Amino acid sequence: MSAPSRQRQADRSRETRRKLMVATVDCLVERGWAGTTTTLVAQRAGVSRGAQLHHFRTRGELVAAAVEHVGALGVEQLRAQAETASSGGGHTVVVVELLADFYASPLFTAALELWVAARTDAELRELVLPLQTRLGRETHRLALELLRVDEAQPGVREAVQATLDLIRGLALANLLTDDSRRRKRIVRQWAAMLDEALRGERG
Amino acid sequence: MSAPSRQRQADRSRETRRKLMVATVDCLVERGWAGTTTTLVAQRAGVSRGAQLHHFRTRGELVAAAVEHVGALGVEQLRAQAETASSGGGHTVVVVELLADFYASPLFTAALELWVAARTDAELRELVLPLQTRLGRETHRLALELLRVDEAQPGVREAVQATLDLIRGLALANLLTDDSRRRKRIVRQWAAMLDEALRGERG
Repeated sequence: MSAPSRQRQADRSRETRRKLMVATVDCLVERGWAGTTTTLVAQRAGVSRGAQLHHFRTRGELVAAAVEHVGALGVEQLRAQAETASSGGGHTVVVVELLADFYASPLFTAALELWVAARTDAELRELVLPLQTRLGRETHRLALELLRVDEAQPGVREAVQATLDLIRGLALANLLTDDSRRRKRIVRQWAAMLDEALRGERG
Repeated sequence: MSAPSRQRQADRSRETRRKLMVATVDCLVERGWAGTTTTLVAQRAGVSRGAQLHHFRTRGELVAAAVEHVGALGVEQLRAQAETASSGGGHTVVVVELLADFYASPLFTAALELWVAARTDAELRELVLPLQTRLGRETHRLALELLRVDEAQPGVREAVQATLDLIRGLALANLLTDDSRRRKRIVRQWAAMLDEALRGERG
């Protein structure tokens, strides 16, 4: 095969993966884990079953890859948003609000469907545990970076972890109803407490 | 029917309900929503299908009642624990720890299975929404009572809500792995920040 046609094939393969992963997350959000079958995902993505099987052998692999891929895209988006948004006053509240809105989104819903399914499925759990660790580590690093704090300072690590735990709790409260107004109030209150705790510890 | 035999029948009926509800929560924890069939629950509870249908017409009704019943028992237990535990120093940290451990328990897992299933099942959602509101209100009242704070004071309502959101986030982090050591650290840090925020606002 010539170099340009190898390139074209690689592009097509990447595009197929991307389509499958977006369709998987949409499907999880709309129908939950039980309704996210590989057949339905292939159909929604407009990808043949053969091509799908070439990329992902099992439903677990497909879903885990999708959550990781869409999660990484979301993190990039968040970074860009934080750069433009944080020029105004109240840096902490802006960042915590961005993080909280990021979690209270369809991506969290998709991840939650996967985590809950993995709880009672040993094979899926083996796939999900390292993914959960990676996503947790990545989000922690992102929060440190956006909040511009140094976790070598005492208490900073725990305060940032608590922020992320709170944000996941707020995302959970958004699962069945729109909780955005209450979330805004809680985030503002928390940002004030966090500012107090981080005072003098900012790098 | 004589009064004593009516009484005996009411007792038996209550005991049947209780058995069904305990078996339902056990089943949710062990097998998830998908594995919690009414047949399996009746079997585990040692109750006939007829008796089960007499009490609960659908799987949704059975599961919602079970989560509410076991939740109410848990709240009573927590109240009793808080009374004996809070005699030592550091009242806030003791209470937040009790609440956090209460949530990071099988009961939360069972409720989460129900919430997640309700997200993509319109009929179940109608059953679950009022239950979620009731449980949320009850837990908020319990937290105010145990922390001995008055939500008429500015900021108290939000601080207590944030505490419960954090605790739900911590419970989520405990879903696939034992997160109790990290949880203890976060709870301690949080309790210190909460004490600071509530300072002078305690009734």
